Amino acid sequence: MEKKEETIELEAGSGGEKSSELIEKIRNNFSVRGQWRNTGDDGAVLDLGESGKLVFTTDAFIVDPIFFPGGDIGKIAMCGTINDLTVMGARPLGIALSLVIEEGFPESDLMKIMKSVETMSRKSGVPVVTGDTKVMEKGKIDKIEITTSGVGLADKIIENNGAEPGDLIISSGDLGEHTVALLGVRFNYKTKIKSDSQTLHQEIAAVGKYLKAAKDPTRGGLAANIIEMAEKAKVKIILEDKLLPYKKETHAIAELLGIDVFSFASEGRFIAAVSPKNAQKALKILKKFNKEAKIIGRVGKGKGVYLKTKVGTERPIESPRGKLVPRIC
Amino acid sequence: MEKKEETIELEAGSGGEKSSELIEKIRNNFSVRGQWRNTGDDGAVLDLGESGKLVFTTDAFIVDPIFFPGGDIGKIAMCGTINDLTVMGARPLGIALSLVIEEGFPESDLMKIMKSVETMSRKSGVPVVTGDTKVMEKGKIDKIEITTSGVGLADKIIENNGAEPGDLIISSGDLGEHTVALLGVRFNYKTKIKSDSQTLHQEIAAVGKYLKAAKDPTRGGLAANIIEMAEKAKVKIILEDKLLPYKKETHAIAELLGIDVFSFASEGRFIAAVSPKNAQKALKILKKFNKEAKIIGRVGKGKGVYLKTKVGTERPIESPRGKLVPRIC
Repeated sequence: MEKKEETIELEAGSGGEKSSELIEKIRNNFSVRGQWRNTGDDGAVLDLGESGKLVFTTDAFIVDPIFFPGGDIGKIAMCGTINDLTVMGARPLGIALSLVIEEGFPESDLMKIMKSVETMSRKSGVPVVTGDTKVMEKGKIDKIEITTSGVGLADKIIENNGAEPGDLIISSGDLGEHTVALLGVRFNYKTKIKSDSQTLHQEIAAVGKYLKAAKDPTRGGLAANIIEMAEKAKVKIILEDKLLPYKKETHAIAELLGIDVFSFASEGRFIAAVSPKNAQKALKILKKFNKEAKIIGRVGKGKGVYLKTKVGTERPIESPRGKLVPRIC
Repeated sequence: MEKKEETIELEAGSGGEKSSELIEKIRNNFSVRGQWRNTGDDGAVLDLGESGKLVFTTDAFIVDPIFFPGGDIGKIAMCGTINDLTVMGARPLGIALSLVIEEGFPESDLMKIMKSVETMSRKSGVPVVTGDTKVMEKGKIDKIEITTSGVGLADKIIENNGAEPGDLIISSGDLGEHTVALLGVRFNYKTKIKSDSQTLHQEIAAVGKYLKAAKDPTRGGLAANIIEMAEKAKVKIILEDKLLPYKKETHAIAELLGIDVFSFASEGRFIAAVSPKNAQKALKILKKFNKEAKIIGRVGKGKGVYLKTKVGTERPIESPRGKLVPRIC
């Protein structure tokens, strides 16, 4: 009997369990570590002594469609990388912008995307400092792919494993709206919801000192990212059904399409664990940026992430499975 | 009359003039600079005080075929980025590895490529410290694209504008063999020539102090890179026909295919300007690494790059034009 050849499937790009498995297989090849610390967060950390801690991160963006309500591929490429640095407590220093463009791609679209990059660069004060541009034959790449890499410096890293029993979980705003905006274009339905893509440097600068663990729930949504937070800290996290950070319309669309709302991605939000004594202070500050900021749950002893329903029962939140919606970011 | 829409064409990815034009158009969007110095070299530089100068670079690899004599896409992705740091005088600290994979890509091929990445990481001592993995639907990307970004630290940057009249131009070995190896596979002809891809950290560590300007002649080959070196330093560079750093077979293949040999790429060589008093010292050291290392020309007053023929006439070397051979790196 012929052995079936293993291939890479779309699910491995979903941000769920299959993604973690593939990443683990890739990482297992690498033996050289140097002085870097990889906390399993989105960036690696190198202590440079008096200069601070260097944080280094990279992200490939293959979003489809490339233009959507609230942004475009250039905007989320900048937001994604700046936020990955920011949620680790780093001050972003600079972005490297790598473009792979399909032959025949309209120059006007490229310049529109570059203007978005520039807008995010100006808003955040983070310069694009180096780059690369490649062109592939027609049909060999779907329009454009952008990889942004970033470097930042931190005095103190906000790691993703710091949640402790008793802590509260805060969301910096309503979640999942990046996915809603994309699905709206793809499935051609009307929604007022726009992509939530934005940089988080101001929010994090304001409340960073209160955050014991933080993560931007991009690919894999709240589900994948809160599960990661619980696993790393070896704690149980209980979300409250009545406090879920999703708009009614977001729930409705998830239901309509049969996709778990917890897998919906955001490109300008973070979730964080905060000690009870700081939670109200942090929340008050965050509400100045986004009135939807709220406490969505709490940390307990044990393991796993559970949703506490209105009647008091708990059901487990599971890591995204299946193909989900490909190419969300 | 309808205005024809401008589109991005393959030539803009060739490393020649059209590439420079497109990169200029992209860069013109960006106004934020921060404290970074962009010398127009392959990396940007940020002075971190006592820690040294941080060098940051990125490169997208879309090479076709992905496996070729002497390497694969993983090997050149590592060599390309490590070398971009190295030729600027930086000690590479770490690599960020971003993968965009086509749905259905064999996992065994992916692991073979990752083993190559690991081999280069071990040989150079430069760790892969962070990464990202995305999957695109079948037919939306051609097999796999890799973007490697790198950070390094330098005490002193080797800039690419330091050539002065009187200096000699050294090549660290025969050039263009990466392109020859790829063309061999694509056009199905037999050649003993393998890709010259390798890391340059040892060579540069040994002779770095003698180099007034250095560049790895990857995309765009010797032509694009030596023209850049002459333009930046506002000098004329004269290459000697009888000292050309190409094997006979490389010349023969270029002629056969009607492609200018000067546009053939290398992925493990550098060219450098060295003062006359250091040239023989540098050459002697370089020959220990590669016996084909040699002086290939000299720097004079004026501008442009010229080839001095055996009969003493000079003909200009021109920047690569036309489609050339796409997807060489």
